[in-house]
Amino acid sequence: MDVVLTPIGPDEVAHAAVRVQGRVRTTPVIAVEPGTLGPWAVAVKLECLQHTGSFKPRGMFNRLLSAEVPDAGVVVASGGNAGLAVAFAARALGHRATVFVPKSAPELKVRRLLEYGADVRQVGSSYGQALAASEVHAAASGALMAHAYDQPEVVAGQGTVGRELEAQCPDLDTVLVAVGGGGLIGGIAGWFAGRISVVAVEPAACPTYAAALDSGGPVDVEVGGLAADSLGAHRIGDWCWAARRWIDQVVVVSDDDIAHAQRRLWESCRVVSEPGGATALAALVSGAYRPQPGERVAAVVCGANADPATVSG
Amino acid sequence: MDVVLTPIGPDEVAHAAVRVQGRVRTTPVIAVEPGTLGPWAVAVKLECLQHTGSFKPRGMFNRLLSAEVPDAGVVVASGGNAGLAVAFAARALGHRATVFVPKSAPELKVRRLLEYGADVRQVGSSYGQALAASEVHAAASGALMAHAYDQPEVVAGQGTVGRELEAQCPDLDTVLVAVGGGGLIGGIAGWFAGRISVVAVEPAACPTYAAALDSGGPVDVEVGGLAADSLGAHRIGDWCWAARRWIDQVVVVSDDDIAHAQRRLWESCRVVSEPGGATALAALVSGAYRPQPGERVAAVVCGANADPATVSG
Repeated sequence: MDVVLTPIGPDEVAHAAVRVQGRVRTTPVIAVEPGTLGPWAVAVKLECLQHTGSFKPRGMFNRLLSAEVPDAGVVVASGGNAGLAVAFAARALGHRATVFVPKSAPELKVRRLLEYGADVRQVGSSYGQALAASEVHAAASGALMAHAYDQPEVVAGQGTVGRELEAQCPDLDTVLVAVGGGGLIGGIAGWFAGRISVVAVEPAACPTYAAALDSGGPVDVEVGGLAADSLGAHRIGDWCWAARRWIDQVVVVSDDDIAHAQRRLWESCRVVSEPGGATALAALVSGAYRPQPGERVAAVVCGANADPATVSG
Repeated sequence: MDVVLTPIGPDEVAHAAVRVQGRVRTTPVIAVEPGTLGPWAVAVKLECLQHTGSFKPRGMFNRLLSAEVPDAGVVVASGGNAGLAVAFAARALGHRATVFVPKSAPELKVRRLLEYGADVRQVGSSYGQALAASEVHAAASGALMAHAYDQPEVVAGQGTVGRELEAQCPDLDTVLVAVGGGGLIGGIAGWFAGRISVVAVEPAACPTYAAALDSGGPVDVEVGGLAADSLGAHRIGDWCWAARRWIDQVVVVSDDDIAHAQRRLWESCRVVSEPGGATALAALVSGAYRPQPGERVAAVVCGANADPATVSG
């Protein structure tokens, strides 16, 4: 694709912050001591305590509050965190939400979508088929499409995580952010816009951003591994790719590193995270990212939609 | 007993805060919306994110840092959160810790004690027998005794939860605190000293404070129910009882209320708590405590040493 996008920047994130204010939670940051989650001190942003258990409502509220939402409401294809966020935000704003999920979607996630009042359509055997069905639905009904990560309003909304983090920790040098489709890191990088170092952390089993760097642009990757349910996008979003000038490096971690970080987070801090939620921290816990002496580092724990039983020691 | 104790007050808590500073975590407070954990807004103090998963290290660090600790170190009888806290604090300060637990202590807790470097002695079939053995050990070895809740230094240390909460939420009207032996509420009430309303919340299955109010002083109660492992003291501590002038009322909740609050805390906030940790919130979720219009209420989630599997939806 030859279209060059102007990345989401600080202004768009600041506007999003005004829109979503009062709709999303200000999530806390905890200061974790050296020797706890790796040899270094780290400020941990507990975005896993956000409504619906992930950062996604920030972007979805901004999407809905930036648009004229038709009577047909909003439609999204997602069996995961984006679907929950759309359902939650739509209910809060009084809109209908239609969520297309593959027939294989876990019963727990379907139940939660129904609890949020969504119209859940179980279609096809893959995410791709659910997505195609959602597009047919949008065309026929006029419903607003929300994308799980690759829309400018969504990226700007996710960027409010960075803005809030800076207000809480004004002296950061570096922030570590997990990458799937890149909505979160695209927004956070857009907020900081080069003022601090933004480090992408990806599972080796779905390295969308690393693959794009290797190929000179977004490409499809195989999707698998422990964090596939939240970070398993097939390719990095164009809006994240547009922000790459503000992303300093990418660190790839193994599924074992992720599982270990999940366990450490529970054992030492009593925080439950999903695999994708612990991925940014996995770079520190494993030593794949090694801060310089004196470097002030934060990591975003971006989701907790796991069965808590999976983190038991 | 006819001894009248002068309760721990703001000065003792302030001194404790200086001693434990840098040893314990400042735990975050989250603002939870009306309709989430009951019909009212509530500020939730996540003391469950403290070292060892409960508030107990505050008191134990203060106990150890207030005393001349002999070469024989410190000894405590506890199969629960107090034992973990003593082991953690002793290791951090370079002291030996001997923890007496009944033979029935869960393997997970024994393993954690061993991970913190404690000398674990499994003795007898009840807490009482472990306590007696710990006293014999203290007399023979000269080790410092730490009490799980009923020592002035311990109560003053736990009071730092209140001091920290006030710094984070300066305009509170009311704080809800779970009661077992009363170390936490004794310290928090001592810090506020009547400036705000302090509400005791107890499980119906081990109502130590309510029983003391009924009887005009501390009395033994039957211990049982869901929260017995953390709130299952047989009687309220004398140091808590001494602070009763600053405890405005007691609310009793059922085991069902506690389990429901635990589930709500996970479902709506992705916070894992143990039953005792969710007990203060259970008063709000169940409606057993009903704030007045405009009343600004906080609740302390004081522990998370549960198997996370027990909170699954």
